[in-house]
Amino acid sequence: MVKLYDDERIDFLLADESMRIIQSPTAFAFSLDAVMLAHFASIPKKRGRILDLCTGNGVVPLLLSRRTEASITGVEIQERIFHMAERNVTLNELSEQLSMIHGDLKEMKPILGHSNFDVVTCNPPYFQTPSSKEQNHNEYLTIARHEVYCTLEDVVKACKLHVKPGGKVAMVHRPGRLIDIVALFRAYKLEPKRLQLVYPKPGREANMLLIEGIRDGKADLKIMPPLYIYNEDGTYTKEAEEIIYG
Amino acid sequence: MVKLYDDERIDFLLADESMRIIQSPTAFAFSLDAVMLAHFASIPKKRGRILDLCTGNGVVPLLLSRRTEASITGVEIQERIFHMAERNVTLNELSEQLSMIHGDLKEMKPILGHSNFDVVTCNPPYFQTPSSKEQNHNEYLTIARHEVYCTLEDVVKACKLHVKPGGKVAMVHRPGRLIDIVALFRAYKLEPKRLQLVYPKPGREANMLLIEGIRDGKADLKIMPPLYIYNEDGTYTKEAEEIIYG
Repeated sequence: MVKLYDDERIDFLLADESMRIIQSPTAFAFSLDAVMLAHFASIPKKRGRILDLCTGNGVVPLLLSRRTEASITGVEIQERIFHMAERNVTLNELSEQLSMIHGDLKEMKPILGHSNFDVVTCNPPYFQTPSSKEQNHNEYLTIARHEVYCTLEDVVKACKLHVKPGGKVAMVHRPGRLIDIVALFRAYKLEPKRLQLVYPKPGREANMLLIEGIRDGKADLKIMPPLYIYNEDGTYTKEAEEIIYG
Repeated sequence: MVKLYDDERIDFLLADESMRIIQSPTAFAFSLDAVMLAHFASIPKKRGRILDLCTGNGVVPLLLSRRTEASITGVEIQERIFHMAERNVTLNELSEQLSMIHGDLKEMKPILGHSNFDVVTCNPPYFQTPSSKEQNHNEYLTIARHEVYCTLEDVVKACKLHVKPGGKVAMVHRPGRLIDIVALFRAYKLEPKRLQLVYPKPGREANMLLIEGIRDGKADLKIMPPLYIYNEDGTYTKEAEEIIYG
């Protein structure tokens, strides 16, 4: 049994109804971006340790648990949303595999040490400066979407600190920040190795990017086939459907 | 009338037979990459100056001349190939618009000054170290394809030197070098603004990239719709056909 706050609801995580997730339209609801990240990341199948920074309500760890037996740790800075993540672990009876930490990703060294994870995933805040309107409107969403508590550099630095040499860092972000991301990955010795671009429809500009770097890797990027979300008629493409509905 | 060497032939530059180009299978024959670059680059329609580095037999200037009345200068380091470019200007009666320079792109400042071009285009050598086999096989092709006389950094530095503030630099290259390219573009204050990836077929990894930076531009990359060259059945896609055959 888990407790629900007034603005919360329990959704199916995926259409196969195997998992559920507590969400809140006013605090945190997961996006397609998190689903894409959980699908894109290369993870060990059996053993190992995975870290998910900016975990929100734990959606990426929940999705990854379907693909691996590795232990997965999530870190979330907002207490209210961290509690959603904790209850999501309970709700899905995953407390042996998943653990959630409430804290600032910039201050995880005393708790998590360094170079202890095979894979680090992150769906960070996308936007640099919140407008004053957004700031006043909803603090939860502002913090999740804007670089209020952490910049992109803070995120990349934390990924580098916690991933093993030879380990992988996977991130989802907006195309407008690609150059910033690869510059920071290089600066922190996370060599970009795989890039995939997500397009809303054929003929449109990309609106999402998925990138994976290897700590201390050799320079050689592969650019994966593009991913389209919708067909011209507004229905999901077959590939998007397979990712979303499993 | 132009003189042809034994190993040279005159090809149609495009299927509409409006232009011809001297090529040589042993010295220099243009590739799809050059055609894609000439299509991708943003150029002024009427006035202005365009510079094409690593121009080879002048294929990019020839193609660009169909899209603009701006003056176009090509620079080629290999004398034999520079002479092909010169004769291609004559053959197509474009000597009022196009001029070719024989020389090293690293040493163009005394001839071209600095910050004098609205647009700089370049289809540089792609490969870092020629194998000894390739080096012995054919010097012309080795120089055109490998970083023998210029590194990627030399190329980017020359682009920066010759483009005006606010002007554009367009380059074609291999996906494996994307991270190197954007790191160098940033280092030389050519902010990447447009990126397009070219895929041989649906479902395959990208095998060509087109990138455009703006000197002193503000960070904000757009990732254009992907370009596919071939359909599953090996015929050109409609979009590739339109680019290649005009």
